[in-house]
Amino acid sequence: MEHATKIAGAKIVKSVFHLLNPHGVSGVVMTADSHLAIHTWPEYGYAAVDLFTCGEVIDPWKAYTHLKERLGAGDVSTVEIKRGQLDFLDRGITHKAAGY
Amino acid sequence: MEHATKIAGAKIVKSVFHLLNPHGVSGVVMTADSHLAIHTWPEYGYAAVDLFTCGEVIDPWKAYTHLKERLGAGDVSTVEIKRGQLDFLDRGITHKAAGY
Repeated sequence: MEHATKIAGAKIVKSVFHLLNPHGVSGVVMTADSHLAIHTWPEYGYAAVDLFTCGEVIDPWKAYTHLKERLGAGDVSTVEIKRGQLDFLDRGITHKAAGY
Repeated sequence: MEHATKIAGAKIVKSVFHLLNPHGVSGVVMTADSHLAIHTWPEYGYAAVDLFTCGEVIDPWKAYTHLKERLGAGDVSTVEIKRGQLDFLDRGITHKAAGY
């Protein structure tokens, strides 16, 4: 996930992962204004991944391609959702995480 | 966000929040197999919130109602996405975060 974040062009602010009992993992990689999250259910061979990115510099599909390959995903279903108002997006996003 | 998580019926495993420069906040509250994320752009009066929940015990709409009220949201747009295979969901989710 961290490598996928870097491949997407984003700078990691913080990562949080925890193992599930009896198996599986949940985790989030935070960037300044985005996050990449994963929840896995190995018993079902299933993983849910969210790639929330902001602006046009970070490319979530690069992270997607990397994760798909590394997870060895067979069947994949993706939904892309454009968030926020268009004029908001067009004006660009300039803020960064404090200290980054 | 943490209060919203509890209202939804979920147990918090870890929370990560960071302030943005010059303003705004990004944060994620992790539960065993779910997460609630927020990214705000105060300069645009905009916040993007993800409420990822699993199973039927946790009710994301309770968190939604709480956050909408606490954020004083005027215009709200919501999209609910059902994830995973139906037979997978029907069998129930039993695993928990290790130690929780």
